[in-house]
Formats: sequence, C-alpha cells, structure tokens
Amino acid sequence: MIIVLRSEATQKEVDEVVARLKNLGFGAHVSRGVERTIIGAIGDEREVDLEEKIGVLPFVERVIPVLAPYRLTSREFRPADTVVKVGEAEIGGGKVTVIAGPCAVESEKQILEVAHRVKEAGAKILRGGAFKPRTSPYSFQGLGELGLRLLARAREETGLPIVTEALGVEELSLVAQYADAIQIGARNMQNFRLLEAVGKLRKPVLLKRGMMSTVDEFLMSAEYVLAQGNYQVILCERGIRTFEPSTRNTLDLSCVPLIKSRSHLPIVVDPSHGTGRSDLVEPMSLASLVAGADGLIVEVHPNPVEALSDGPQSITPFQFSSLMEEVKKITRLLGKEI
Amino acid sequence: MIIVLRSEATQKEVDEVVARLKNLGFGAHVSRGVERTIIGAIGDEREVDLEEKIGVLPFVERVIPVLAPYRLTSREFRPADTVVKVGEAEIGGGKVTVIAGPCAVESEKQILEVAHRVKEAGAKILRGGAFKPRTSPYSFQGLGELGLRLLARAREETGLPIVTEALGVEELSLVAQYADAIQIGARNMQNFRLLEAVGKLRKPVLLKRGMMSTVDEFLMSAEYVLAQGNYQVILCERGIRTFEPSTRNTLDLSCVPLIKSRSHLPIVVDPSHGTGRSDLVEPMSLASLVAGADGLIVEVHPNPVEALSDGPQSITPFQFSSLMEEVKKITRLLGKEI
Amino acid sequence: MIIVLRSEATQKEVDEVVARLKNLGFGAHVSRGVERTIIGAIGDEREVDLEEKIGVLPFVERVIPVLAPYRLTSREFRPADTVVKVGEAEIGGGKVTVIAGPCAVESEKQILEVAHRVKEAGAKILRGGAFKPRTSPYSFQGLGELGLRLLARAREETGLPIVTEALGVEELSLVAQYADAIQIGARNMQNFRLLEAVGKLRKPVLLKRGMMSTVDEFLMSAEYVLAQGNYQVILCERGIRTFEPSTRNTLDLSCVPLIKSRSHLPIVVDPSHGTGRSDLVEPMSLASLVAGADGLIVEVHPNPVEALSDGPQSITPFQFSSLMEEVKKITRLLGKEI
Amino acid sequence: MIIVLRSEATQKEVDEVVARLKNLGFGAHVSRGVERTIIGAIGDEREVDLEEKIGVLPFVERVIPVLAPYRLTSREFRPADTVVKVGEAEIGGGKVTVIAGPCAVESEKQILEVAHRVKEAGAKILRGGAFKPRTSPYSFQGLGELGLRLLARAREETGLPIVTEALGVEELSLVAQYADAIQIGARNMQNFRLLEAVGKLRKPVLLKRGMMSTVDEFLMSAEYVLAQGNYQVILCERGIRTFEPSTRNTLDLSCVPLIKSRSHLPIVVDPSHGTGRSDLVEPMSLASLVAGADGLIVEVHPNPVEALSDGPQSITPFQFSSLMEEVKKITRLLGKEI
Repeated sequence: MIIVLRSEATQKEVDEVVARLKNLGFGAHVSRGVERTIIGAIGDEREVDLEEKIGVLPFVERVIPVLAPYRLTSREFRPADTVVKVGEAEIGGGKVTVIAGPCAVESEKQILEVAHRVKEAGAKILRGGAFKPRTSPYSFQGLGELGLRLLARAREETGLPIVTEALGVEELSLVAQYADAIQIGARNMQNFRLLEAVGKLRKPVLLKRGMMSTVDEFLMSAEYVLAQGNYQVILCERGIRTFEPSTRNTLDLSCVPLIKSRSHLPIVVDPSHGTGRSDLVEPMSLASLVAGADGLIVEVHPNPVEALSDGPQSITPFQFSSLMEEVKKITRLLGKEI
Repeated sequence: MIIVLRSEATQKEVDEVVARLKNLGFGAHVSRGVERTIIGAIGDEREVDLEEKIGVLPFVERVIPVLAPYRLTSREFRPADTVVKVGEAEIGGGKVTVIAGPCAVESEKQILEVAHRVKEAGAKILRGGAFKPRTSPYSFQGLGELGLRLLARAREETGLPIVTEALGVEELSLVAQYADAIQIGARNMQNFRLLEAVGKLRKPVLLKRGMMSTVDEFLMSAEYVLAQGNYQVILCERGIRTFEPSTRNTLDLSCVPLIKSRSHLPIVVDPSHGTGRSDLVEPMSLASLVAGADGLIVEVHPNPVEALSDGPQSITPFQFSSLMEEVKKITRLLGKEI
Repeated sequence: MIIVLRSEATQKEVDEVVARLKNLGFGAHVSRGVERTIIGAIGDEREVDLEEKIGVLPFVERVIPVLAPYRLTSREFRPADTVVKVGEAEIGGGKVTVIAGPCAVESEKQILEVAHRVKEAGAKILRGGAFKPRTSPYSFQGLGELGLRLLARAREETGLPIVTEALGVEELSLVAQYADAIQIGARNMQNFRLLEAVGKLRKPVLLKRGMMSTVDEFLMSAEYVLAQGNYQVILCERGIRTFEPSTRNTLDLSCVPLIKSRSHLPIVVDPSHGTGRSDLVEPMSLASLVAGADGLIVEVHPNPVEALSDGPQSITPFQFSSLMEEVKKITRLLGKEI
Repeated sequence: MIIVLRSEATQKEVDEVVARLKNLGFGAHVSRGVERTIIGAIGDEREVDLEEKIGVLPFVERVIPVLAPYRLTSREFRPADTVVKVGEAEIGGGKVTVIAGPCAVESEKQILEVAHRVKEAGAKILRGGAFKPRTSPYSFQGLGELGLRLLARAREETGLPIVTEALGVEELSLVAQYADAIQIGARNMQNFRLLEAVGKLRKPVLLKRGMMSTVDEFLMSAEYVLAQGNYQVILCERGIRTFEPSTRNTLDLSCVPLIKSRSHLPIVVDPSHGTGRSDLVEPMSLASLVAGADGLIVEVHPNPVEALSDGPQSITPFQFSSLMEEVKKITRLLGKEI
C-alpha cells in the first residue's frame, strides 16, 4: 500500500502515519519528493483495510493499493488452470465447452426438444431457467420446481448435465438437489449471502459478471465462494452496461484474456445476453473463443417466436447446429478440444 | 405498444402481427408510412410482454413501449405524495427529514455518542449497519445481532427510530424485530427474493438505487415491494457508476425531480456514498434539498479516522451540526418543515 | 511518480529503473515490500512522461502519478479565485452570474425579444449560437455571420455582452470580432488546435466539459488555453454521458465543489443541456448554485414550440423570470451577489 | 416518426399536431389506445427535425424516430460492400487488411525500421502520427511536417501507402500532400468542420469512433463526409469509455457485425488503443477478424521501451510477425484474402 500525503503535511503528521502503520503491524518506508511525501506500507495489505484506516487522516491525499485484493482466486495463488467438472463435462484447461438451452424452461416438450437438439449439435451442458429474475413483478417468473423436474427429465433422456439459476438462499437446497451446477445471475453478483451459501455447497458455480462490475469486483465475488472452500467456480462474461443503446449490453471480450492472466478460474462467454440480438450470437461466439474463452453459454429455443422470455436473443436449434460447425473449426484452429 | 416492421415486410406479415395481437387480446391499428409500416397495439401492455411476443418476429424491427412498466408506483396511480412514517418521523409531503449515523455500528459507546449528537443537531432517524455488504470477504462484515441490539439501545436512549440494512431474506425477520425501517442496499436493488420478502412485511423500506440501474428499473424494484402490499417505500438516490474516477459514484440529482414527476413515493439522497468524499457532503446535501429531495441520509462518525468502514466519506458530529444549520436555512427558504 | 514493479522483478531490474530515472533527471527512492518493490521517482513529473518512459518496461507493473497533470489551472498555482470579465459582467469571486438566450439565433425578432426579456429578468450575458454543431449534416447549422450580426445588434440594444460558439479555427477571428466571450462546445473540448487558437486570443473563453471527459481531462483542456497565455477561462459543466436514458445527459453537480477545490477558475452549469428537459431546468439551476457554481447558462426561447433547435429543453422568457426570482433568493441565502 | 401524446391530451391538441404535421409536409395517422393516443407521421422524417418541431409541444410525451438518421452511409442506400483503395491496398469486400506502425513518427531510423519490418510481416499500409492529439499540452506533440516527410520516405523505400492523422482543417492540405489516407482521431469524431473539410478532399478517410459516441452517431459522422461527396471512408472501432479501469477503453467488438448490417462502409479495429495493453493486442486482433472486421490497425514500435508515446500498448516487430502468422491462419479459416 502506498500512502501519498498532502503537500502541506508536516513532519509530525508523517510520524503519525508511521506510528499508525506500526500499530497495525506494518513497516513504513518514507520517501520525500519535491512536492509530496509518500510512504510505502510494508506488510500484507489484504489483512487490514489500510484505505480506511489511513486514507481517512486529513493530511493523507490518497492511499493506493499495490496488490490485487483477491488471493485464492489469483493466478499467483494457483498458477495452473482450474478445470471444473460439471457432470462428465469439463470446463477449462484447453477445452472448449458449450452450454446451451432455453432462457426459461417452459414445458416438457420444449426442454426435451432443445436438449436433444443441442446435444446432437455438440453441446456438453444443458441450461434452462426454472427461477427467473425479472425486472418487472408482472413478467413470467419461471416454472419453479416443476421446471427443475423437467430439467432433470431432460438430463435423464440425454445424459447432459444441467446448470440452472438460484435467485436466493432459500431456494438453494432445492435447486442443488436437481442441478449439476448452480448459476448466480448478474444481478446477484454482489448478493453476498447467496455467494457465501453456494460457497458452502460442494457443487460447481457458474458466476455471471454484474453488468456494472469491474473485473476486480468480479474476481472478489468469486473469492467469496472460494473463501468458503468451494473452488469449483466458472466465471461468465455477459456484457456490461454502457451508453450504447444498439445492443442490450456491451460484451467486454478484452476481459477474457485479462482474467486469464489474473486468475486460474475458467471463463465462458454469454453472447446471448451480451448482445441481446440473435444475429450477433454467432460472430460474438466465435470471437469469444478466439479471445481465449473456455466455452460459451448460448440461448437456444425451438421456436424463439413463441418463447416466454428472451426470444429476441435466442437462436433456433438449426442456427445452433450451424454455429457449432463454426465453433468446431475455430476450436481445431486454436489447437483445443471440444 | 408500437410495433415497427422492417421495410421489406409484406401484407401477409402485417396480417400475422395483427392476428397475433388479437390472440393476445389487443386491438391493432395499422399505419403505412413511406418506408415503414407501424402498428399500434391497443390494450393494456403491462399485462402481456409484447416486446417478447411480437419483437421476436423476424420481420419486426422494433417494439416500443408507450406506458411506463410500473403501475402502483406511478404518479398516475396515486397523484398525491405518499408520506412514510418511520417511528414518529415522517418522510415526504413537504417535510425535510434527515437520517444520520455511522456506516457501521462498531460499539455501544460509538453508536450512543453518534445517536445523541445527531439528535441534538436535528436528525429524526438514526442509521447504522449491523450487517454490512462488503466487496471483499476479508473486510469487516458488521457486528450482526449485537449491532441490532446496540441500535435498539440507542433508540431507547434517544427516541430516534432506526433504519438498518438486511442483506438477505434469512436475516430479515431478525432485522425486522429491531428496525423501524429496513434498508435494501444498492447491490440488492434487484435481489427480487428480498424485495418480495420486504413487500410482505408491514415495515417501511428504504430502497437504494442500484449503481447500474436506470430510474425506471429503480421504480420497477419499488413496484416489487408495492405489489406485495407494502406501500411504505422510501426511495434513495446514492450515486450511479460512471467513468469519472474523482468521486466514488456520480450523484444523479436530476433523478430527484424526475422521480417526483413519475412517482408518488418520497425520495431521499445519500451524499456520503454518492460522492465518497466528506468534503462534498455539505454542498451536495444542500443541492439535493433544493432539487426537491424529501430528506438526506448522511454518514456521521464520532471519529472518522478510527471508523471500521467508510471513514473517508463520514463527517464528524461537529460537521454534522454545522451542516444541519445550513439544512435548516434551506428548508425555510423552500417553505418546508424539518 | 510511484513505480510498482512486478513481483518477480530482480535486483538488476530495480537497478535499471533507477538508472533510467537518473538519466531522465529524477532521483529514486527504492522501497522493498513483502510482495512488491516500489520506487518513488523524485523530480517534477510534469516535465517528463514517466508513465510512458518507465511504464513500458516489462517488469514494471504500474506507474502511478502523484501530482495532478495541470499546473496553471490548479488551485495550488493560484490560491485566489479567478474572476473573468465578459463585457461589464463578472464571473467568479462571490458573484452569481446568469447567461441566457436561445440555443440558436434564428431571426432579429427572436434574438431581440429574448435579449430584452432575459435582461429585464436579471441575466448579465446573452448567449446564442450562430454556428451550431449538429450530429446530422442535414440539421439546421445556424445562421453563420448573419447570426453574429444579430447578436451584436442585440448587444447594442440591451447592453448585454454576448457569448457564442466557434466550431473551428477558421471561423474564430470572425466570431471574435463580434463576441465578448468565445464558447468551445463539449464536442470540441479536446479539439486541441481550437484550444490553442483561443489561447492566443485575449478574449474570455467559455469551455464546456466533454460529455465523456473526466474532471482532470477537463482541467487539462483548460490548461491548453492557459498555457498560451489566456487566463480568462470559464469552465462549464453540462452533463456527462451515462447509461441513464431518461435525461439527455447526467448532470454531474459534484464536480462543481470538486473543481473549486482543484482549480481557481470559475465554473458555471448548463442545466438545459445537462438534463434536456425544460421541467428540470429550474430545480437543477438552483441545485447548481447551492453546490457552489458561479453562475448558470440557460436556454431561453420566446416560443420553444417554434425553436429551430433544442426546443424541448428551452424555457420561455416567462419561466425564466420566475426562475430568476428563485435564483435571487438562493443567491441572498448564499451571501452572494447577483 | 411516431408521436406519443400525454394521457390528458384533448381532441383539440390531437388536431393541432395533425395540422402542424401537415404544414411540415407530413401525413398523419391517428391511433387512439386505451391510455395514450399515438400519431404516425407519414413522410421523410430525415428532411425535417420533427423531434424538435413536434416534441416541444407541451402535450406531447415523446417523439420516436422510425428511420436511422443516416442515408448515404446506410446499407439500404448501397447494399454492396464499399471497397476503399489506399494506394494499392484495398479495405473491404472480403479482404483482411492490416495497417501497422508506430503511434508517433520519432526519427528516420525508427520509421524506416518499422516500415520494413511490418511490410515483411504482411502489413499493407503504414501508420504513424506526425501531429499527435495529447491530453496534456506538455506532452510530445509529434514531429509535424518533418514527420510527414519521414513517412513519405518510408513509403518510397517500402511501397507501403501511408495513413496519418490531421488534427485540424488548417493542416489538412499539408497532410493531404503526403498521406494516402487521412486519419480523423476519436477526439475529433464530432469536429464537424474537419469532417466537412475531408469530405471535400478526394482522399480516403480513416474515421475513428469517438470514445463517447454511439454507433448511430458514428455513422452520422461518416455521413458528414459522404454528404460532401467523399465516399472513401473506412470506419475504425477503437474502444469506448466505460467504468472498467483495467483496460484503457472497452473494445466494443459487437459493433463490428452491427455496423456491417447497417452500413456498406468497411470497418477496421484498433486493438492497441482499444485495450491499452500490449498483452491483449493479439487475442483482440484475432477476435476482431472473427467478428467480421475488414482489417486491423496496430501500433508497432521497434523498441516500445523507448517510445515517445503509447509505449505500453505497442508491440515489437517480432511480436507483430508472430501476430501476422495467426492473422493469416484466421483469414484462411474465414475464407478471406489478406
């Protein structure tokens, strides 16, 4: 941690910072510049919130962290890629894994049809929402436990493991009974109670980036899960919110190689929510893989025109098959396996 | 709802939209322009998600909602200002009500001292966190139930009602036992399970705007609470996230008169989180009131330098007294009561 | 400037940074922490671009500036408030100065009517665009020199000095012949050729903040003008671009007290562009003054319904008079003069 | 254009809108819904600014454009891809064209070395700044005309055509004497005087997206150039500004396929400015091509550690060669030519 003092700071004030640091168990290295004095705090800055303890002093201009605030999530902590197993499928470590399915489970017919079709095309995991987070209380909220049972039925028939969302701690054990991996949605990325609760499970977690969360906040939310002992976390970039109105969100693909350099966790991309437009799903899927993503999560609906939610960004099973042909070519080019 | 068709849409496709609308219980009004055909859907668009049902058709270019998606929250639904009572204090309806207290309850001495001091200066409600949402799992997470007991103690001594945050549904009944109003934090603005749960309580709710949420999404989250029968909602603007790094958030004061025109609910402003800098608390507090806010929520700490959280944005009881002098002058000028 | 080395940096690499700093005329202060080595560069960092010279070394993790990059613009350089004179009007130093007029000069009748009306109500400077920056090449581009002549005519009749925009260097001398102050629009805030050119004039400059410019970039653009010897710069906050669609821009009022603490230059606020809605002009005008602004720039049109541009955010002369009554009350409360 | 009236609009007010539309040469189609009346304006909405003429009426709630505001730039106007020739190089129409070179021309040795190296590796156009836009007036501003002469020298030696930036109208004819294509930088995307001036030239223009500009504003700026008769415009996505601090900008790759669907103009991507980090240049370059970009513009410096500007995001000639190997593989996979 680096502490920058205001230009008018006196020797007495410099001494006060040094004493305070000492009390907190830190060494101090004072460096007097022409216009500012800066103090290096020597110790593990992740143990103590120096920004609050020192930054609050009236003669301190700024406190600048030197280390990333996450630990277990960092590449420094674990240099090798983490591979997360969801059923028989693996995410991370040189694989390209595609998760596909409808936004919401709507009926047995719908989910079975999609499950069979995406499996044939090469998807390894089935997605589908039983509990749906909706901006409006008047929108379709999902089929609930019935949806979970239908997902389990689809797994039985196809062998595909399933990932589905839990919106709150109170439904988590129910969701966990059915799901092979639990999804934490973007709006819940900083629902710390939910993060702690999935951290205590021993199930893989698919953690979506909040739409206005920085990369470091995203990794801190993963840290909440890892800190409870659950290392099976798959990160998911799904677009951030910007001023651009043409797309639902702005897909931040640069975060893929960036996160790969900072963390050992696998990362997949959701081009469906990331763009909100079915015509952009294919180009952005392929771009994601080339940027280094470990996989994709794509919304597929047998008949987007009849979908109860997210129709405009869903692709058909036919379009999905065609996308998978391109995914396979790119995967080969990258020297990865599908 | 207005439906804009693509330029190449045929008569058959126009007919298909009209038929679909009819099935959904809507009338249709077709208007052929030079380059586009537009169709007005006649009916209550809040009942059916036309954006999904119609927007998904391949020859539909756009679906444009005409009405705001909230109903109970809207000024049209209830033209008169809602006044929310928290203990003896009232928020809304021509009053200026100040909520003050530390970011987190840290000790009996701290909370009692702050409570007495802010009461003397004119605050009507005491704030203080017992459960704290923190970006890092390693930061101070609050005193939990002990914090709630200390808040109750402070209420007993000063008579000030208390507002404090619940982070999850599972701690809500505990928090509700102690609190006069429940705070839902910015990161939980779209934690729909929590919104539903506080909607079922009969306690006032202080709902903070998410840092990534539009005004309409904010009002939709309030709608979740009202839809459960709880109309005692106080809105709180606390800054949105932008590219500007000099302040912790960008306080969006324009939203105050805007929300007043769209909704009957009272709105207060949090200049402490909104700016993240204690030197900006006073000017932005006063500006908020002039912009039409029904009150303020301000972080006050007896010794910000020793605060366990949010020290840099807290003001001292002495600064708070001086702020309240200015608040009183502004309130008089506005012809309001404190 | 503080240089943070990567964790794996060797002694040889530390030495290389020190040697490089020495070559650039800087002293170096090495501080070895537990996980990182940091080096304080001692010297005037505004002279040399250390971020580029040092940050590029492969074993350097980050280079952190300690000083603000502006100098002449800073409060440290000149502790007292700068007062800018535009004709007989003064902006800064305890005054509240209101600039008003139409978005664009449209006709002699229009500009004369507005000029008389805003003068009567208390405006001290007349605004009006003769050259208009428009997103579309097909929109009304302003009356050009005729507009300037009409502005001069209005000045003659009312005595109000005039401020009007120059879009490019090539029309600057023409604009300067007529105008008492030159406006640089938000889209030109980083048109460095234009900044240099107005820096060489000896006329006041009204510099608007770019809609996606940070406070520090804004002050750097002012620095371009001051660096050419022209210290008569009035800053203008006019809203920044965010994700919020309800207002044209998000008015960043916190930047007013923030800029006052960083710079000696006066700052006014434009609530018309800042919100894009005439109903928000009054509350945000008053909030701006309370936040510390030295004045306002408000769009007034005799008949907004007939305005050739920016009608929806213009107020009528009648509304302006009523606004000025409130402005006077606030000004008295603040102990300032109008 | 669709006009939505306020709920309380009377028949007389509906008639007023219809009459106003008629005066402006538009037909009107009135559609009465349950809670709102909407009016479709029939005519060419790009001719008249209805948003200003009608939106300003007090009983009008909103005016919604139906058509994109650009015309010459649109795919509807010209369905086939435009191919822009820069010297012998072509951009657009199934080619992948790489532009490479240093941020700034620094010396004869530097530019010649880079030119030879990038040509060998497969670049078709040389880039290099002679006039540099810099946030600070104290930063290196480029070599000016000497820089242009050195670029011409590099063209002579290598045969590579050159693209270089003009910052203002006054230096445009000088730049045009030397350059094969004129670059308009992101900060000048809405410098309308400069856009008009390059529109009058008969030289290709490389137009960079402003960091605060929507896709439609970007296309409108292109329209300024086309409207003057110059159709040789190459668009360039270079990252937009968001809240994410880990990268210099957020590269918006979704805009590539989006712009391809809206416009016939070619588009290239600048991963160097788009990310600000040399380690992200390769993954984001490849992702751009897969997303559909017609080419890349990459900063290459013989010794980034000594670069006078943008060192941290520049790659070495060696890294560039390695990048080009990957570019070639991707190009083949896409069935395009280099």
